[in-house]
Amino acid sequence: METSASVLPAGQNGLMSRQGFEDAIRQVGAERYHSLHPFHKLLHGGHCTHSQVQAWVLNRFYYQSRIPLKDAALLSRMEDPELRREWRKRIEDHDGSGKNEGGIERWLVLAEAVGLERTYVLSLAGVLPATRFAVDAYIHFVRERPLLEAIASSLTELFAPKIHEERISGLLEHYDFANDTTIAYFKRRLKEAPEDVAFTLDYVLSTAETRKEQDSVVAAVRFKTDLLWAQLDALYHAYVAPGHIPPGAFVPGEAP
Amino acid sequence: METSASVLPAGQNGLMSRQGFEDAIRQVGAERYHSLHPFHKLLHGGHCTHSQVQAWVLNRFYYQSRIPLKDAALLSRMEDPELRREWRKRIEDHDGSGKNEGGIERWLVLAEAVGLERTYVLSLAGVLPATRFAVDAYIHFVRERPLLEAIASSLTELFAPKIHEERISGLLEHYDFANDTTIAYFKRRLKEAPEDVAFTLDYVLSTAETRKEQDSVVAAVRFKTDLLWAQLDALYHAYVAPGHIPPGAFVPGEAP
Repeated sequence: METSASVLPAGQNGLMSRQGFEDAIRQVGAERYHSLHPFHKLLHGGHCTHSQVQAWVLNRFYYQSRIPLKDAALLSRMEDPELRREWRKRIEDHDGSGKNEGGIERWLVLAEAVGLERTYVLSLAGVLPATRFAVDAYIHFVRERPLLEAIASSLTELFAPKIHEERISGLLEHYDFANDTTIAYFKRRLKEAPEDVAFTLDYVLSTAETRKEQDSVVAAVRFKTDLLWAQLDALYHAYVAPGHIPPGAFVPGEAP
Repeated sequence: METSASVLPAGQNGLMSRQGFEDAIRQVGAERYHSLHPFHKLLHGGHCTHSQVQAWVLNRFYYQSRIPLKDAALLSRMEDPELRREWRKRIEDHDGSGKNEGGIERWLVLAEAVGLERTYVLSLAGVLPATRFAVDAYIHFVRERPLLEAIASSLTELFAPKIHEERISGLLEHYDFANDTTIAYFKRRLKEAPEDVAFTLDYVLSTAETRKEQDSVVAAVRFKTDLLWAQLDALYHAYVAPGHIPPGAFVPGEAP
């Protein structure tokens, strides 16, 4: 992974102030979050074909399906019960708990609404290999990197509410399949993500004690934006332009 | 990873004959090896711009640089000294030994010949994130999967001599930078790859004892073709069409 070389004002030993550190994290989002990707402009502006929406939903399901595995891997490295108790919520949000059916189920409702068979989506058969490589890199990252970086990589949630709002209004405005039920996933995340990220942001701002650690946090956020971006690049290449679908991946119209 | 469902004739318990098993492995190459990718058609046909050749050399260097790490990870899982002795050659081929400067050094000679600074290439700074994700997936695969599958994933070498021959003649015919010195990497691989793969093929054909193991070998080769293909998809998307270079990656003309 690329090492960060921040050029922000820094105090003794190069340590960034709490505010400067937070600004450096937020700057990654302003420059590299996937809200800036051309695919999202197409999607939210109503310019995606039905097949392109299907391909997006199908591939993004792979990401959704791996998030609880990622969080479980993180949980398995947290020695502090308080920290585990806080972090466990993320797994419950995705897998469900009590009357909450969970984010994965909500995503499957969306998948069915765009005409994909639930069993096909669950089989993961048509997922782009590049989607798997990018998402699996996230799991390996939280397994292998220092705990601070592993936790920091979820900080892209800082930038999520804005893209979710754009998506909700864009989907409702432009696509017939969109209604309160089918896009419930995004509405729910509007509530969940800010709760999660408030904790995470405070954790990294308080835990990073050296400039090197601060830089490693910023680099972890950058790594995460890279893997979100790479998923959309792969989708664009396969299903928008030039439309080269790699061998074995979802071919619109051919899937069950 | 996708599970294989071969439809080849099979004996008792579905076990493929030795020849049928080898054919199933070779079939993966015929259908999915990256010799079929549009980027290679452009490259070998002389249709790549100088910048596109640079981007290819730069990104492919990341793959080259990780191969010895991949083989070392494999070596660390082989409990049989005979097997380690055989496999060690692959690390020597890439890292060099005695008077042999090694494949990585030969690739750096190629990189300099296409106008890239050696230190820039070695820094890995401009490598596409998607290249990293695909290549790193290879390292994680050989660390995590059963030894048989980890070994089998190198079987794409079966298909390499043909692409190397196409590449050598295509580069020599169409590009000014190409001569015996600058493309020494490929000439050397013409000799090394068949030696390596003869051993590997015999190993998997002899070691897989059930249909499930045979299928896992075929799936491992398919996984490997996927990650080779994904690297070229990313290159095409960023540098050919539509030419969307992701944030932070090599921008032709801007690199040192």
